[in-house]
Amino acid sequence: MGGDHGPPVVIPAVVRAVATLPAEVRFLLHGDEAVIAAALAKHPGIAARCEIRHAERVIAMDEKPAQALRRGKGTSMWNAVEAVRDGQAVAALSAGNTGALNGISKLILRMCVEVDRPALVASIPTPRGVTTFLDVGANIDCDAERLVEFAIMGEAFHRAAHGTVKPTVGLLNVGSEEMKGHEEVREAHRILRAGHLDLDFHGFVEGDDITKGTVDVVVTDGFTGNVAMKAMEGAARFMSTELRNALSSGPMAVLGYLLARPALLKFRERMSPTPAAPFLGLNGIVVKCHGGASDRDFAMAIRLAVDLARSDFSAEIERNMRRLPDALAEPAPVAAAGAIAPQKPPPKEPMSDERAT
Amino acid sequence: MGGDHGPPVVIPAVVRAVATLPAEVRFLLHGDEAVIAAALAKHPGIAARCEIRHAERVIAMDEKPAQALRRGKGTSMWNAVEAVRDGQAVAALSAGNTGALNGISKLILRMCVEVDRPALVASIPTPRGVTTFLDVGANIDCDAERLVEFAIMGEAFHRAAHGTVKPTVGLLNVGSEEMKGHEEVREAHRILRAGHLDLDFHGFVEGDDITKGTVDVVVTDGFTGNVAMKAMEGAARFMSTELRNALSSGPMAVLGYLLARPALLKFRERMSPTPAAPFLGLNGIVVKCHGGASDRDFAMAIRLAVDLARSDFSAEIERNMRRLPDALAEPAPVAAAGAIAPQKPPPKEPMSDERAT
Repeated sequence: MGGDHGPPVVIPAVVRAVATLPAEVRFLLHGDEAVIAAALAKHPGIAARCEIRHAERVIAMDEKPAQALRRGKGTSMWNAVEAVRDGQAVAALSAGNTGALNGISKLILRMCVEVDRPALVASIPTPRGVTTFLDVGANIDCDAERLVEFAIMGEAFHRAAHGTVKPTVGLLNVGSEEMKGHEEVREAHRILRAGHLDLDFHGFVEGDDITKGTVDVVVTDGFTGNVAMKAMEGAARFMSTELRNALSSGPMAVLGYLLARPALLKFRERMSPTPAAPFLGLNGIVVKCHGGASDRDFAMAIRLAVDLARSDFSAEIERNMRRLPDALAEPAPVAAAGAIAPQKPPPKEPMSDERAT
Repeated sequence: MGGDHGPPVVIPAVVRAVATLPAEVRFLLHGDEAVIAAALAKHPGIAARCEIRHAERVIAMDEKPAQALRRGKGTSMWNAVEAVRDGQAVAALSAGNTGALNGISKLILRMCVEVDRPALVASIPTPRGVTTFLDVGANIDCDAERLVEFAIMGEAFHRAAHGTVKPTVGLLNVGSEEMKGHEEVREAHRILRAGHLDLDFHGFVEGDDITKGTVDVVVTDGFTGNVAMKAMEGAARFMSTELRNALSSGPMAVLGYLLARPALLKFRERMSPTPAAPFLGLNGIVVKCHGGASDRDFAMAIRLAVDLARSDFSAEIERNMRRLPDALAEPAPVAAAGAIAPQKPPPKEPMSDERAT
């Protein structure tokens, strides 16, 4: 029911998606039965793969997350996530209210990692493919351990979504040298560098590496990630507007635009952001599609959810999470190996004045 | 002597700049006398306004800031900043090593505010003009007071550089509501909102507001600022490359490109970053021009330095800095007005789970 359009987009998206999905993939459609049935009637071909689950209420797009949590029970969004918890569905999908979906998912499914809230992932186009960028806004204050958890989850997600066997992981910083950045990123760097985790850690990366594709997964805290993602979106939007203005600034420019139009449309398509993103860190798969999604966008979100459900990514996250306690501990001194010694806090790295230049 | 080109760019830049500058503006040219004199010989018209100050050594572009500080004395960069301290020059300009210039400026001129190091400013093009964005990399860990100092300095700089009588100031955050973001930005918001400072505070802004031009000055810590600026640069560079690829992808696209070329060149010019930026927070004016600057870029840097020197911006910063202690204190309870009461720490704002959505 969510998003700007509801069933008139979701049903055609299911039609698109089933064309390329295995026959066993089936759909539970949560929401107003009459509305969904009417939309479904136009596409008899998919009726056998869909089951309507009536819900009396929906969560509004502009509802505050706290309010959505209080009065969410019995809404279509709530029921969709509950179906994942109860094993009736392998993934929940929504184009509805992001904050409400994040909060309801956390409440119903619970977190499988220590981070406060499910992490938000952005998929950013690059010359090499796509950069997985997280957290882009859910967890504002992150210590080193949270950043390492993002690395674990982002790496497993990237493999599941893009088929890369061994995605490379970078930690966002203001420079590539080890003594740069604040304490949290330097400590996370040390943990990831120690090699206890099963992932290909590249080291620090900088803001422009996100669109360069230097690594497959770029990890940062939710504050920096949200600001960086919106800053990039803003820059891209501003450039598009200025480009449009330039190409309508005179008869020759307009003629040039008309001739180059097919190439420019392909360019625009390539620059457009991925319409769907998972919430990472939950005991279950929840995929958020953006509110203004077209049926094509929502079909991509369905395929992403299916890819995740058919992948090993939850088990991979769990495996690396079990290695985390070892990675957090400093390498034990040789003399103490095997002996039960009191835990000493890790020595602080020397402070340096050489941070960013 | 600095930058990728040295005197062959700096001298023609002086020629360009003097054409529009008042007759009393004169230049001290620090560096290798023979090289500078040779470049100057080609432009006899400006000889009367230039004085060569010989320096035996220069600081290399790739020299570590710490090393540059140790062995910097007597280099052309050192002498240029020292001339400001000694009142022989009103501003120092360099296209050389950024980290070295920042460190040497701090050492010689000293800070006029509490921030650790001179703040780096970026000037970002917007549909409305230019956004002043700081700190973009010098100060990694910033408490609320540091953020407020950036607001004070950025506001005064924007007025001096762009002539805006009352620039608006926004604080970068992950949402516009007061309970969002980490403690430092919420506390800085409270201080700026309290109204003791003489500046037009707009409230929180988000990453995409930087290129929207929502406010004239966007304030953030050096970590977030550096990442956001580089992320925007990366996004812009990626889009330019993809656009170039699209416009060379076939005969029609190429023909279109050729017809639209003048418009596209204007577009590129408009999107190109401002070549010069001041270091803010020093007792004196130091302007950094980017290393690959052309004579046109360096002439813009000269004009910026002159604009700053002729403005009131240092006095304005000082005036607002004197108001800061009042702004930092909570509004005094009525009963205690006029009485000498022990300072109580300001009450913490209630923590909220509703951060970013």
